[in-house]
Amino acid sequence: MSTIELPLTRESIVAAHKLIKPHIHTTPVLTNTTLSNLASTPQSPEALKGTPWEGQEPAKPNIRLFFKAENFQKIGAFKVRGAFHAVLRLVEEKGIEEVRKKGVVTHSSGNHAQALALAARTLSIPAHIVMPSISTPSKISGTRAQGAILHFSGSTAAEREAVVADVIKETGATLVPPYDHPHIMLGQGTMALEFAAEVDALLAATPELSVHYKSGQGAANGIIGEGRGLDALIAPCGGGGMLSGNAIYFHDSRTRVFGAEPQFEGADDARRGVAAGQRITSVKTLTIADGLRTPLGPHTWKVISDKDYVAGLYAVTEQQIKDALRLVLERMKCFVEPSAVVALATVLYNEEFRKMVEREAGKEGWDIGLIFSGGNTTIEAIVKMFGDVSEDKARREEGLVGADGRKVAENVAG
Amino acid sequence: MSTIELPLTRESIVAAHKLIKPHIHTTPVLTNTTLSNLASTPQSPEALKGTPWEGQEPAKPNIRLFFKAENFQKIGAFKVRGAFHAVLRLVEEKGIEEVRKKGVVTHSSGNHAQALALAARTLSIPAHIVMPSISTPSKISGTRAQGAILHFSGSTAAEREAVVADVIKETGATLVPPYDHPHIMLGQGTMALEFAAEVDALLAATPELSVHYKSGQGAANGIIGEGRGLDALIAPCGGGGMLSGNAIYFHDSRTRVFGAEPQFEGADDARRGVAAGQRITSVKTLTIADGLRTPLGPHTWKVISDKDYVAGLYAVTEQQIKDALRLVLERMKCFVEPSAVVALATVLYNEEFRKMVEREAGKEGWDIGLIFSGGNTTIEAIVKMFGDVSEDKARREEGLVGADGRKVAENVAG
Repeated sequence: MSTIELPLTRESIVAAHKLIKPHIHTTPVLTNTTLSNLASTPQSPEALKGTPWEGQEPAKPNIRLFFKAENFQKIGAFKVRGAFHAVLRLVEEKGIEEVRKKGVVTHSSGNHAQALALAARTLSIPAHIVMPSISTPSKISGTRAQGAILHFSGSTAAEREAVVADVIKETGATLVPPYDHPHIMLGQGTMALEFAAEVDALLAATPELSVHYKSGQGAANGIIGEGRGLDALIAPCGGGGMLSGNAIYFHDSRTRVFGAEPQFEGADDARRGVAAGQRITSVKTLTIADGLRTPLGPHTWKVISDKDYVAGLYAVTEQQIKDALRLVLERMKCFVEPSAVVALATVLYNEEFRKMVEREAGKEGWDIGLIFSGGNTTIEAIVKMFGDVSEDKARREEGLVGADGRKVAENVAG
Repeated sequence: MSTIELPLTRESIVAAHKLIKPHIHTTPVLTNTTLSNLASTPQSPEALKGTPWEGQEPAKPNIRLFFKAENFQKIGAFKVRGAFHAVLRLVEEKGIEEVRKKGVVTHSSGNHAQALALAARTLSIPAHIVMPSISTPSKISGTRAQGAILHFSGSTAAEREAVVADVIKETGATLVPPYDHPHIMLGQGTMALEFAAEVDALLAATPELSVHYKSGQGAANGIIGEGRGLDALIAPCGGGGMLSGNAIYFHDSRTRVFGAEPQFEGADDARRGVAAGQRITSVKTLTIADGLRTPLGPHTWKVISDKDYVAGLYAVTEQQIKDALRLVLERMKCFVEPSAVVALATVLYNEEFRKMVEREAGKEGWDIGLIFSGGNTTIEAIVKMFGDVSEDKARREEGLVGADGRKVAENVAG
């Protein structure tokens, strides 16, 4: 990886954005009345049974949601931002000829591998991808179709790292890690820059989308627009590249940044680590949010464990992720992967978060930005996840309901 | 229904758009490199086995696709355009007080019922919806949530019409039919007006999206932009409201309009009727494209059977619809209903259409607009449709392939 040291600041993200902008999509910001209304409706008392909030009055936060749709990004996920930034900084340091001669390498079978392969192909640089030999044939041929050079390894981290070391020894390729590097973090942070600008433009044009809108006043009164932007942003957290990038961009602004994780089998390592004051270095979970199965690294931990950067971390259950996924598919008509909806699940179903919003935001409420990190799932995965629909179905046959029994209007996309 | 006679012209559609614009979303136009590339790749010889094109050289059309995303429309489908137009014209004729007193009525359990309920609720008009009593509870409660007054009937057309007649007798409500009325057709045609303007704006900004772009020339040379717009548009055809509306808007323009239908159990009544020179008045099909199970009506037939309006009709198989649906979900990350993808299935898999494009468009090719009519399906429906994935899966495990064996790069959303 490049040894240029970029400070972890908003200015570095602005510079990163300038560098990668020709190569990425400026993804749209979406809003959805149904989901904002659902987020602003108290959970049912039944939904709180067996939780610390059982018997309490459910929170009544007032919330408007704004979604940054990185599922529409190139390769279907935000990962191209960090990959392009890392590769372009490498070229800046070593020169294009040198990088073209030696190439780049990573071990991943997921979105980062695709992203690095695309960035490398765009710049005519060889990309070596180390994958477990038990990877599905479709993943193998898909990565090959991106023009990457495949190397197979065993399934353990040690086995993969051994093959990476071999590739580096043989080719001189530079390792581009999936998240724990300043260039990756700053690259992912470029989505925050776009998100802030897009929300400002959106609210200038349609101020009534904001919780702060008062009929007859609106932007003219300085209540919204003019860079006021989001009150809060929630990003999914796996290795922490995206969350830390967003937190760096919004540091010292009025936008509070939060992280969301799956809690299944300890996948909420960031939340637990911050609570304990020590980074958790190993996680073994099969959460359906498969992009979020990795623990934080030293670089991302440093940002995410700092309260000045990340104001809080929240975890959600597998059922809550599935319920949020269903809402995004059926109501927003967006195809996203399970990892992409943990932030929405937090807003809708995490009572601790909802109580906090009610407390901090008061009656006026918050405009909250959520990041749809990616859309790389398959119909097979959906069938597997929802194939046994009997339980869900029974609940839904009574009427269309949210995860907790809140009724929602059918088929309202707008 | 209102008795005001509006001529079936582009001017009437411009007037309709002005009337309904405050109430509808201007839905976005999307593009997708992967799908345009796939459309421009010849089908494999195997895909043509058992068809009239077996043994022939597969067509090599050059195609760029533009998608009008009406799945992001209010209520999740284009139907609100016609419903708002019909109701607003009714108000114009009879006065709001009269319409509020007597209400509107329709028999439908699908998108039109939701659309009419929303239009009526917006204008504080009672909406009576006649549904078969065997409708799913979720559909019943969903329509109720839109504020409609429900009436139950038997399942046959005659039973439903009897209940509608009762409602009209009792309340004086006006029937708003789902497609076969000039106001509905003109209302649906407003999407064509938006589509044309959006494609022009898009190509002015990014001329390289067009097949007509020549590096170093582009818009400046009059090749694209300046209202040149689409070479062709394909709309799904059920009752024909949307197809006829688009055909009226593009009449006497350089944009040729085509219709697409499912062929399963004779659902391609428009294609067969036009071939035989006589409207087919009854269709009984359970195609998965459930929005397209209805035959044309007298009004829509008149437009659609006229070669000056609709240049051709094409039909696709259930498997082709499923394959196109998979591509839209997994590659475009858009959640759409099966009816929405019959136009895409035609472009990708109907060799007759593809040969015609190759012949008519020559080497340069065509910019083709497709309409995603709606997104109102459920995860349960997807599970049912793709639940037995063994066959599809076996094919896909060899690598990611299109319906006909064409390889496509994995996870390229952009």
